[in-house]
Amino acid sequence: MGLWVLRYGHRLGRDPRASMHVLLTARALGADGAMLCGEEDAELVGRVEKIVESWGGPFEVRYEKDWMGAVEKFKKNGGCFVNLTMYGLPVQDVIAKIRKESKDCLVLVGSQKVPVEAYDLADFNVSVSSQPHSEIAALAVFLDRYCEGRELTKAWDGKIRITPSKVGKSVNMSNK
Amino acid sequence: MGLWVLRYGHRLGRDPRASMHVLLTARALGADGAMLCGEEDAELVGRVEKIVESWGGPFEVRYEKDWMGAVEKFKKNGGCFVNLTMYGLPVQDVIAKIRKESKDCLVLVGSQKVPVEAYDLADFNVSVSSQPHSEIAALAVFLDRYCEGRELTKAWDGKIRITPSKVGKSVNMSNK
Repeated sequence: MGLWVLRYGHRLGRDPRASMHVLLTARALGADGAMLCGEEDAELVGRVEKIVESWGGPFEVRYEKDWMGAVEKFKKNGGCFVNLTMYGLPVQDVIAKIRKESKDCLVLVGSQKVPVEAYDLADFNVSVSSQPHSEIAALAVFLDRYCEGRELTKAWDGKIRITPSKVGKSVNMSNK
Repeated sequence: MGLWVLRYGHRLGRDPRASMHVLLTARALGADGAMLCGEEDAELVGRVEKIVESWGGPFEVRYEKDWMGAVEKFKKNGGCFVNLTMYGLPVQDVIAKIRKESKDCLVLVGSQKVPVEAYDLADFNVSVSSQPHSEIAALAVFLDRYCEGRELTKAWDGKIRITPSKVGKSVNMSNK
């Protein structure tokens, strides 16, 4: 378990780009894995796996047909389930409580409208502002605050590595 | 001036959804305004203006044909120009310095590949992790850290307001 992201309601025609943002944000900002729910999209999952292969891990990504079953299983194993929604309680008020609740956390972000069952199953319905914006942005702020910034100092073991630069681009490639 | 976001390289066919995420994230997470650069998209700008009308402001959004001219003008007026890029210096290392640099800050996020001129013009090239993920996520973390979380407690004056709830949805509409 650990820190996981669940992308709810993926649609093949409409969502690949936004869902890719969600999955890569999960990886880059501290999650241990992500589940893609909704319409099956092996190509998208494969593209994320290729990023993990090149840029490092560990990060698990998989298609999950039964989102509710996955949530119930996560909760049964002692994990905390968070539904990110503009209607929920402010992230700044509940993040410490969520962190204390369990060492395992599953965060749902929707593409399609999220059903009432997610609100009911949630240990915490959480908002990153009560304004309309972006589930990708909300996820990013949630993860950064959940991980207390430590995710940004993680040492990655990928074949491709960037050395932060004041100007320009410094990329190192290895063949390991 | 104040805190502004510049969306670079918008493309009509491909980018409306991602650019909408960028513009709404800018509004929700503390920016005073945003410029859309690249291909002109009056419909997108209009959609954001409608959100401002319903959900509150102030937030200015406009199409800007000459991105480089806009950046140069912002800098000439004493503002600090930040280019968000995975190749830049870690946000956690430079955010305090950026805040001190000027009370005005313009943050560029790309859709298309960002040209070398942006890197050269930037007072700070800044990364939110050196991993590939999402310019929307990077912008969200940058804004949250730049505003030190204060953006999440802003009181909005819109016709539509949400009251944060533990479960369910509480929406208030006024006709003012």
